[in-house]
Amino acid sequence: MKITVVAPGRPIDPVVAARAGAFAAIAYPEVDLIFHPQCFESAGHFAGSDALRAATFLSVANDPAVDAVWFARGGYGSNRILAEVMPNLGPAAARKAYAGYSDMGFLLGALYARRIGRPVHAPMATDINRNKGDETVARTLGWLVRGDRQGLEPDLGGRPAAAFNLAILDALIGTPWLPDLTDHVLIIEEVSEPLYRVDRMLFTVANATQLKGIAGVRLGVVNDIVENDPPWGETLEAMMARWCRDMGVPYLGRARVGHTQDNYVVPFGIA
Amino acid sequence: MKITVVAPGRPIDPVVAARAGAFAAIAYPEVDLIFHPQCFESAGHFAGSDALRAATFLSVANDPAVDAVWFARGGYGSNRILAEVMPNLGPAAARKAYAGYSDMGFLLGALYARRIGRPVHAPMATDINRNKGDETVARTLGWLVRGDRQGLEPDLGGRPAAAFNLAILDALIGTPWLPDLTDHVLIIEEVSEPLYRVDRMLFTVANATQLKGIAGVRLGVVNDIVENDPPWGETLEAMMARWCRDMGVPYLGRARVGHTQDNYVVPFGIA
Repeated sequence: MKITVVAPGRPIDPVVAARAGAFAAIAYPEVDLIFHPQCFESAGHFAGSDALRAATFLSVANDPAVDAVWFARGGYGSNRILAEVMPNLGPAAARKAYAGYSDMGFLLGALYARRIGRPVHAPMATDINRNKGDETVARTLGWLVRGDRQGLEPDLGGRPAAAFNLAILDALIGTPWLPDLTDHVLIIEEVSEPLYRVDRMLFTVANATQLKGIAGVRLGVVNDIVENDPPWGETLEAMMARWCRDMGVPYLGRARVGHTQDNYVVPFGIA
Repeated sequence: MKITVVAPGRPIDPVVAARAGAFAAIAYPEVDLIFHPQCFESAGHFAGSDALRAATFLSVANDPAVDAVWFARGGYGSNRILAEVMPNLGPAAARKAYAGYSDMGFLLGALYARRIGRPVHAPMATDINRNKGDETVARTLGWLVRGDRQGLEPDLGGRPAAAFNLAILDALIGTPWLPDLTDHVLIIEEVSEPLYRVDRMLFTVANATQLKGIAGVRLGVVNDIVENDPPWGETLEAMMARWCRDMGVPYLGRARVGHTQDNYVVPFGIA
């Protein structure tokens, strides 16, 4: 089985590739894990120009010899290649999985909107750098390589689901790149935001015309919260319950996804 | 003429009210400028609870004796009262102007979406605290009280326009609160964001289904930019030209609106 790593957002250090590659070689010897050289390119904020990132993603997605695309890292930028990439995906692109999270939600969402391949919210190669990062990336590799359900978010319960970073979901809302999530459980997570911004993004989710008809909302990890001035004075649980009430859907509690070691796999749709 | 100041987002200091009131009394003696006591309320992040802010806005908007509603300040929160406020506005609300910017764009946008009254992107009472703040607030009062066009953004050119803080516009996109801006020149401004976030918000604007049909985009002041890591390496002009090209509308250059002393009046629609 061949998995190729690409970086549609920001670049990674070759050390990350070496570390993730070494772990995969030992734990998943049946995998041919290839880090595309584009992962190490740099152009301003990004892992190479928009054109390079788009061309790389397309060549890998359209390669019949590649079974899955694993995203190296998030960090902003995958939205900038959607217009070039999405119309040019061929039959081979529809037969593979795409795994990542955070900024990669732009691509996962756009793929799912067109029901191309199997988008999966899952730890990325760069997560090998976390404490117990081998366990984190093993969830992705285990799912992609062996269909190992131990790395799945534990409460998916056979219902269709989709997971997004809240800021990325917010940026997709109102655009044709947002998938139809009717009857899906929507799982959101956030990092490095003050609570008034989380609240503002939830306003958009709760009022989004495109999200009418979702089955409910679950909240992943919200961490590295930027201090609110003045103090926000409301728990995340209360905030979620309030916006879900406005939205007219059930708040279904917490989920184990997020920018953390405790980030589990959520295949879009039914796992 | 009676103008009442309310605070649908965050509270102001009574000193601001005294300063703005004193200036108005001298420069616009024909105005009865009333600061509603709600402006000084405090509940967590907000100028009183959602219920208080909604009730205050409704009572003032629906008061036939009030000619215009002037917003005290932005700072987050006006979105939280839309669901309560908008269905309960009566005939008197349709006969007055509403002036503010920043977070108040939620209310201005929602009012314009239903063509209720005359929403105006304009300096707020708290802008009296700026250097030459009297000149700043005079633009709002001059327009509201005397129809003085000297405070209008200088290049409106008789075309319909609307002005928004980019983050607020982004939060409205995909919701029914966003007005139909077909054939309008869309003016945006931003403050205190890193450029990758400005770029991400422009992605949403450029891809927004609801914004198809706008006449073009102008860029106001983008200030207090948070440092991008790594450096962004692209001018704002180039960024705007790029996204407007993607959107298929002309980039029409800079505009004098924003979180600054150099903030001019943009009545929604044709001035």
